Amino acid sequence: MSGTEIITAAVLVIGDEILSGRTKDQNIGTIAEHLTSIGIALKEVRVVGDDAPEIIAAVNALRARYAYVFTTGGIGPTHDDITADSVGAAFGVTVDIDPRAVAMMEPVYAARGITLNAARLRMARIPAGAELITNTVSAPPGFKIDNVFVLAGVPDIMKSMLLAATERLRTGPKVNAVSIVLHRAEGDIAELFAAHQAAYPDVTMGSYPSFAGGSYLTELVLRSSDSIRLEEARAGLVRQLTEQRLL
Amino acid sequence: MSGTEIITAAVLVIGDEILSGRTKDQNIGTIAEHLTSIGIALKEVRVVGDDAPEIIAAVNALRARYAYVFTTGGIGPTHDDITADSVGAAFGVTVDIDPRAVAMMEPVYAARGITLNAARLRMARIPAGAELITNTVSAPPGFKIDNVFVLAGVPDIMKSMLLAATERLRTGPKVNAVSIVLHRAEGDIAELFAAHQAAYPDVTMGSYPSFAGGSYLTELVLRSSDSIRLEEARAGLVRQLTEQRLL
Repeated sequence: MSGTEIITAAVLVIGDEILSGRTKDQNIGTIAEHLTSIGIALKEVRVVGDDAPEIIAAVNALRARYAYVFTTGGIGPTHDDITADSVGAAFGVTVDIDPRAVAMMEPVYAARGITLNAARLRMARIPAGAELITNTVSAPPGFKIDNVFVLAGVPDIMKSMLLAATERLRTGPKVNAVSIVLHRAEGDIAELFAAHQAAYPDVTMGSYPSFAGGSYLTELVLRSSDSIRLEEARAGLVRQLTEQRLL
Repeated sequence: MSGTEIITAAVLVIGDEILSGRTKDQNIGTIAEHLTSIGIALKEVRVVGDDAPEIIAAVNALRARYAYVFTTGGIGPTHDDITADSVGAAFGVTVDIDPRAVAMMEPVYAARGITLNAARLRMARIPAGAELITNTVSAPPGFKIDNVFVLAGVPDIMKSMLLAATERLRTGPKVNAVSIVLHRAEGDIAELFAAHQAAYPDVTMGSYPSFAGGSYLTELVLRSSDSIRLEEARAGLVRQLTEQRLL
């Protein structure tokens, strides 16, 4: 369902390994790009460790403030996987082995010769009242409770769950982006660009510098959900940059 | 200065481009790894957009809670660079062109034939009372105000500033990590691993699964600032895994 109302979201990455720097997060970028493409505005990201009070506090702060919260990590079979219990605690509901989750795991495990032992059954522990989210990669599901989507941390499994979750999301206007790349430093175009932003307050404009082969590169990005205004702003900016011999 | 007290930190990434997914953050991993290596415990990360009230609220929440806060992004010359003003507002101090910052920029710009125009002078705007942080890549400095370090978003410049800031940091005990890689799924070792964690409550143990070439891989990571206990825990775990033919 796509509407005109802006739908907001937050991401909560859970895991000591991200905070120690041992694992480099890949999920923030994937979720950010996906949400933008379907018309949901990602407004905040947090990363916390495998620590129940921290997870509970972050889940409660974010779910109160944004339309959707997506968590990643901490839903595996080992003792450091405490996300399901923490999310259950955040909602004040019990967390138990869910027969629907077991039913998703059993046939896949049987086919792959994997034993459904006590540790793996931990992955079927789901907060009361949650809906399950299919995992087409390794079977144990994620879940959705109210506006919180609990996804895996392993990038391929996270992607599978994110796609499965997408059909349940309300979406707002899609924000389109266009960019202009200049072989100029930001400081050369900043005044012109600020004036152009002032002329088009409804088009969000950002400037992203980089260095490549010892020379400056600046990418000007214009964003709007109104394609006509966006093209008008883009064309006007190109014209001015060309006139001033900056492009 | 290295001590026995645990020194905590948070990272605040600032930028619409990260939340839109257009730019994939690289700074969180770099800072996390660096802080771990010098004996500072990164406890939380937040990402917010180029929005003054959001930046101010996040800076104030994090600086009250952690020994250090490192921000990245939003200190360039364009209109969307609002970090210096927002940090100034968070501390309730004025933000003006700082002659010390101008003095860092002038000789570098002169040597490179870059004009120090009004837009570039924006990068010399520093909150009152802040110390400057050298930028060996492109000259405009970062700054430190109280326990908040304001760094650039471009990864190479951020690294240069992070190294420059390091000598001003108090550090705590270094947490060492050792890992054991198993060609097993997590579910096969979870019970043994949980029992081992219970036997060594002072050694933090985490398990990180991945798939490679269609087969499961699990990395068991043990962390402690006590090298003797860490080696004892590692050797004991290897012995048990070997006995149970899991390694």
